[in-house]
Amino acid sequence: MQQSAEKPVLLVALGGNALIQKGQVGTMEEQFENLKRPMAQIARLSQDYRIILTHGNAPQVGNLLLQQECCDAVPHLPLEILVAQTQGQMGYMLESTLDTALMESGLKAAPGLVSLISYVVVDENDPAFRNPSKPIGPSFSSRKASNLPYPTQKTAKGYRRVVASPKPLTIVEKREIRKLIDMDFLVICCGGGGIPVVREGRRFCGVDAVIDKDLASAKLAEEVGVDIFVMATDVEGAALNYGANHQEYLRTMTVAQAQQYLEAEHFPPGSMGPKVEAAMGFAQHTGNRAVITSLHAIKEAVAGGAGTEIISSPAFSTPVPP
Amino acid sequence: MQQSAEKPVLLVALGGNALIQKGQVGTMEEQFENLKRPMAQIARLSQDYRIILTHGNAPQVGNLLLQQECCDAVPHLPLEILVAQTQGQMGYMLESTLDTALMESGLKAAPGLVSLISYVVVDENDPAFRNPSKPIGPSFSSRKASNLPYPTQKTAKGYRRVVASPKPLTIVEKREIRKLIDMDFLVICCGGGGIPVVREGRRFCGVDAVIDKDLASAKLAEEVGVDIFVMATDVEGAALNYGANHQEYLRTMTVAQAQQYLEAEHFPPGSMGPKVEAAMGFAQHTGNRAVITSLHAIKEAVAGGAGTEIISSPAFSTPVPP
Repeated sequence: MQQSAEKPVLLVALGGNALIQKGQVGTMEEQFENLKRPMAQIARLSQDYRIILTHGNAPQVGNLLLQQECCDAVPHLPLEILVAQTQGQMGYMLESTLDTALMESGLKAAPGLVSLISYVVVDENDPAFRNPSKPIGPSFSSRKASNLPYPTQKTAKGYRRVVASPKPLTIVEKREIRKLIDMDFLVICCGGGGIPVVREGRRFCGVDAVIDKDLASAKLAEEVGVDIFVMATDVEGAALNYGANHQEYLRTMTVAQAQQYLEAEHFPPGSMGPKVEAAMGFAQHTGNRAVITSLHAIKEAVAGGAGTEIISSPAFSTPVPP
Repeated sequence: MQQSAEKPVLLVALGGNALIQKGQVGTMEEQFENLKRPMAQIARLSQDYRIILTHGNAPQVGNLLLQQECCDAVPHLPLEILVAQTQGQMGYMLESTLDTALMESGLKAAPGLVSLISYVVVDENDPAFRNPSKPIGPSFSSRKASNLPYPTQKTAKGYRRVVASPKPLTIVEKREIRKLIDMDFLVICCGGGGIPVVREGRRFCGVDAVIDKDLASAKLAEEVGVDIFVMATDVEGAALNYGANHQEYLRTMTVAQAQQYLEAEHFPPGSMGPKVEAAMGFAQHTGNRAVITSLHAIKEAVAGGAGTEIISSPAFSTPVPP
């Protein structure tokens, strides 16, 4: 085990599917069971790295929205409050599963393990507010949708509420997180991309929006000074021609190559697109490694043996495929 | 402003009515508005004290339970997860209102401000599990109640679910909270009495229970080493003959006097009773001051000019009223 001062800082962003997998409804048993495998890897990694753990919340916040739609006996809460609720729920689940993983394995726990509520400032003039495009929550019939008090969009599942997904400007708790990392704490934070707020003069105001958790994690990684940024999801990495016969997983790409592939629409918006963008931003601004990998290969990806690595320097890039 | 190392440590436990007052349904606007006054006092106090802030969650967790009862489209979550959700929601609301109070007043912010998810270990053999007695959530008709999958009890409002309210044994994050206080962080934690867990060998398991937030706060205050423990609620202090013509607020009582009054049933269970018990435990174990006061007089109570103070030493007690 390395000494704290020498330990590199690792940020791992867990996809929402770390807790609720495709085809599951999201019982507590399912969520705790799914968490065991990624958390066992985090426990091992915590022996050699100082760790910041972030996570998605799409299925969980969707369930809370669905509950609100069902029930008029209780005041409906704005979206940022539901995001805050999922930070509480998932922070507890991640923290307690990690505690258990450490206790069961006999590994040494970090000097501190905390789950922090995090809020993230966005720009009230972000163009995303004029064009809400992220579908969330339950689906409705066309007639029901036209009577709802918020914008909806037709999707494959029916009409769904769409909300703005503005770019994260800064994580309010970044100084606290940096100090905690300096003390070798393991910090769980920025759940669901953070609670979105705008700054109005000398106050913060919550806004009905959701922030992409990979972009928020990349912003945090830059602001706090992270050495390796890993996004763990349900595929083994970024691929060219994803889903087609000639699909090809990428092992390494430079920021410039990633930009080319993005423009050629190899990485769909709303799934691999934001991950690649988050990795590009981090690699470009810091010169450090960003890796997109599967939930089952976090350890291997950190060691350089799995996933797609995005790097700023062309010196390390693989040749562009034809 | 005192220097950090000299600053005494103050724990303030806010009652649930800090956010939702009697007669209110609990819209976001109401909750944020109600918070302004207590948080302005906390902002002032933070100039001279290192502060730990805890809070109740009864109306909020009741609303989440009611939503669950309405909606079968989403898996029902166990009570400890709903407590965790309220820690997220209320941690965000407290933290952002305090941030705003500090920014608007131009007061100096603490070197760190964090809201932590907190879980609290209880004993699986606590007698409260054999005799669940704390009513929570919505009320049902007798027929509906008999078909529910959990125990209910007849109350003034109809049949309500009753859950165990076991004694808090230890706060899992106590070492982290102590380290944060040492760094002069302002820490929001232990919301709703903490997420209740039992220890099963080398793992933690959540349990369907709620922990009294004043007892959990007293335990935390003892474990972390707090100098002054303040419980802020909707009355100005503890009273003899509360609600009767000859009601008499108490300014000071010793632990021995408090025990006498408790036995004489001056302090009703479920409201003033647990507060007095929490104050007694803290004063007895630490020799420090515990004060029960109103939400509007937190600052005065800290200064010794409001509320009911419970002290361990009989030297400072007022004479026992006839």
